[in-house]
Amino acid sequence: MPDLTLAAYVESSREAALARLVDWVKIPSISADPAHAPDVEGSAHYCAQLLRDAGLDNVEVCPITEDRAGPGEPASVPGGGPVVYGEWLGAGPGAPTVLIYGHHDVQPVDPLDEWQFEPFAPTVAGGQLQGRGTSDDKGQVLMQIEAVRGLLAERGTLPVNVKFLVEGEEEVGSPHLEPWLGGQKDRLAADVIVVSDTTMHSLQVPSTTVGMRGLVAFDVKLRTARSDLHSGIWGGTVPNAAIAASRLASALHDATGRVTIPGFYDDVAEVNDGEPPFDEADFCQKAGVNYLEGESGRTPYERTATRPTAELVGIHSGYGGPGIKTIVPATANLKLAVRLVPHQQPEDIAPAIEAWLVEHLPVGIDWSVSTIGGVAPLLTPVSHPAMAALSRAIESVWGKGPIYTRSGGSGPEEALSRVLEAPLICLGVGLPEDNFHAPNERLVLDQLWRGVVAAGELLVELGRVGKEALT
Amino acid sequence: MPDLTLAAYVESSREAALARLVDWVKIPSISADPAHAPDVEGSAHYCAQLLRDAGLDNVEVCPITEDRAGPGEPASVPGGGPVVYGEWLGAGPGAPTVLIYGHHDVQPVDPLDEWQFEPFAPTVAGGQLQGRGTSDDKGQVLMQIEAVRGLLAERGTLPVNVKFLVEGEEEVGSPHLEPWLGGQKDRLAADVIVVSDTTMHSLQVPSTTVGMRGLVAFDVKLRTARSDLHSGIWGGTVPNAAIAASRLASALHDATGRVTIPGFYDDVAEVNDGEPPFDEADFCQKAGVNYLEGESGRTPYERTATRPTAELVGIHSGYGGPGIKTIVPATANLKLAVRLVPHQQPEDIAPAIEAWLVEHLPVGIDWSVSTIGGVAPLLTPVSHPAMAALSRAIESVWGKGPIYTRSGGSGPEEALSRVLEAPLICLGVGLPEDNFHAPNERLVLDQLWRGVVAAGELLVELGRVGKEALT
Repeated sequence: MPDLTLAAYVESSREAALARLVDWVKIPSISADPAHAPDVEGSAHYCAQLLRDAGLDNVEVCPITEDRAGPGEPASVPGGGPVVYGEWLGAGPGAPTVLIYGHHDVQPVDPLDEWQFEPFAPTVAGGQLQGRGTSDDKGQVLMQIEAVRGLLAERGTLPVNVKFLVEGEEEVGSPHLEPWLGGQKDRLAADVIVVSDTTMHSLQVPSTTVGMRGLVAFDVKLRTARSDLHSGIWGGTVPNAAIAASRLASALHDATGRVTIPGFYDDVAEVNDGEPPFDEADFCQKAGVNYLEGESGRTPYERTATRPTAELVGIHSGYGGPGIKTIVPATANLKLAVRLVPHQQPEDIAPAIEAWLVEHLPVGIDWSVSTIGGVAPLLTPVSHPAMAALSRAIESVWGKGPIYTRSGGSGPEEALSRVLEAPLICLGVGLPEDNFHAPNERLVLDQLWRGVVAAGELLVELGRVGKEALT
Repeated sequence: MPDLTLAAYVESSREAALARLVDWVKIPSISADPAHAPDVEGSAHYCAQLLRDAGLDNVEVCPITEDRAGPGEPASVPGGGPVVYGEWLGAGPGAPTVLIYGHHDVQPVDPLDEWQFEPFAPTVAGGQLQGRGTSDDKGQVLMQIEAVRGLLAERGTLPVNVKFLVEGEEEVGSPHLEPWLGGQKDRLAADVIVVSDTTMHSLQVPSTTVGMRGLVAFDVKLRTARSDLHSGIWGGTVPNAAIAASRLASALHDATGRVTIPGFYDDVAEVNDGEPPFDEADFCQKAGVNYLEGESGRTPYERTATRPTAELVGIHSGYGGPGIKTIVPATANLKLAVRLVPHQQPEDIAPAIEAWLVEHLPVGIDWSVSTIGGVAPLLTPVSHPAMAALSRAIESVWGKGPIYTRSGGSGPEEALSRVLEAPLICLGVGLPEDNFHAPNERLVLDQLWRGVVAAGELLVELGRVGKEALT
């Protein structure tokens, strides 16, 4: 990539950049686990130092919740990890302002026995950096920081004003971010938001995300008896919480793969924006599965991008230790993650879940349900000039422009775009096989270095478009 | 009970006896957990000292397996805790020999947060001793030891020869006991076996167990993908192990409550031996449940005693920690405990389970199943003179003879009776609400003291019956 602005910078600085990422990944900033709150804090301060070293000004680690418990104590709501902010406004008020978004918190790492390497001892193997958070999302945030560092190092200036917002509770649904954003509209004001927290179709087929499913999750608890009961004495007569939970979970989809939650599809918009290339054998191989399932009459792309889902992300009841325990379990826990598409709204799902529980649980089983997070689905403005700038930046690095995909996953993008009243585009260099949220997460280093160059090109392209055309 | 042999002994010694039990219960002899192997060993040595102090001879802690791993290392098969043996043969070869059976290992204690007291810090409250193993089975073994101690203290002799066999792996299905018994036939030879590891119908309605369901358990593991997958990227297309496990579990019973394992009922004998008194409201209250379930057309007594069951004792898949993790789980574990009735055999169930898995799991899901334990069902000889002696002993203490019940639970009784070629009777003083295997296990002290007196009376009665009539 000799003719690109940052190509030489990347060649000369990749060792140092990689070392910076390695040290960041070593911090186990698991936002779902209150025990790791000090690590999320530590990760924020590490990120702040990266921003300062890159040349950003007014760098600050911003607490985003007042009700956060102290280190080691459970927070009243999961998450609450601080946002890291930094800015470079030297391009002046006549130039566009770009808000770059990513996150520094990571997913939990269980089941630990399925990792082939230590999740928080990052190592390079086969052109990949292995470790939790390498691709989702510390590597992609580092990519953006390196682009700014490189441009400032090479030119002493940037073609646009830049603001970084690196949050610390994305992996738990960003429960405190939106209220905080509402109070920071002036500081965060931007002409365009660039998100680096997505994947590309493949190394050979660059893509950009133009739609994101929303997310709302639920924790369902069941109780069938005061306590676990001896399966010899009581077994055969008393309700079994593990069975009740299993029946409930198996009733979540009907025989055609459709979600049985009442009214679940009522607000779903039909989308017809074409299909990206799809190779089922390759898809299965990347996923590590032997076959595909899902809603009848819908393509795999639709099922992962334009159709809503209700996934059982966990079921736990009774004895799970070594050997056997001869009990009838009294309690069960189900965790559901619901992916939302336009025009479903997170707040409509909780009452629907409650109606579903009433419909499917026998009277006499005690239950409760609590809502976790809540992110609305997002549609990006594909005809916006920022999208054209993004396409040029991607084409300059990958040799062809991006196809448009919709992401099955979501962060707080919809809230960012809505609250800050700015269009949002995605420059993401993760790959589907990077094992986001799963054991053995990794980052393809070639994607990282291409991403640094592309992120720099994107700032150059947005500068060329100019503030007037962007707003 | 002033006219009974041990009534005065119990009056004078209950404080000391209770103190001995308390110290025993403090030892967390959980046989299911290899990490507690040293505690099971410690419990055996404590029991041995109790036997020596009571006046038993040739007391020995007997290892029953050669392949047992060292402390802290997992055993190749769960269990393997040592048997404690002791004997008093002073009644001479012309007198009957009674083998007394119980166990010193205990069930695991999770879920710990449902205990209202520390499981291994036994305390007396409301006439009950609270703690894991108080009723199942350390308290009932102590009852037998105290009876021998009392008789020897009062008389210097016993009316019969007595042998104690207190095993250490009952709670994991006694996987090593039967082979060991086969090599100990001479030492363990007896005219009658007395088991103290059962419950009575209630404090007011004494009962004795004349049949026991057998037990065989299974550990089923499923895998739908190489690793957990991001629910946003893959959700909607890939199989979900938590859902697969739930569907499997919910297919374990049909709409009439019958087990769907192929051929499950083929060998089941119909039993018509009348029903003990049953009060559904009281039963539900004791169980702590709001309603009853089970096989259609069968009474609750039949469903817990004369009919086989397949209970899901655990289901675990995906994320169960705080908050949410947005994954599609790749693995799941189900644990099943199958209760067997005459004439089902444990070795016939494993292939039936495999057939059931093949029938109910989609092709493309990897699975494995391992068998844990295996105890055949037991029928005791109700017309044997030892049963009449037992009835008299019980009547002398509780004021009325026992009703006959069948126990839904089982230990190695069938193997004991078969290998040692001796009839087996049950003097058990647990109560249904003692929370065997569940949180908040307790022992009603009034039952313990009555049991000590009854155990002494039983030895006296068996002495009166004489060796000739017993064999």
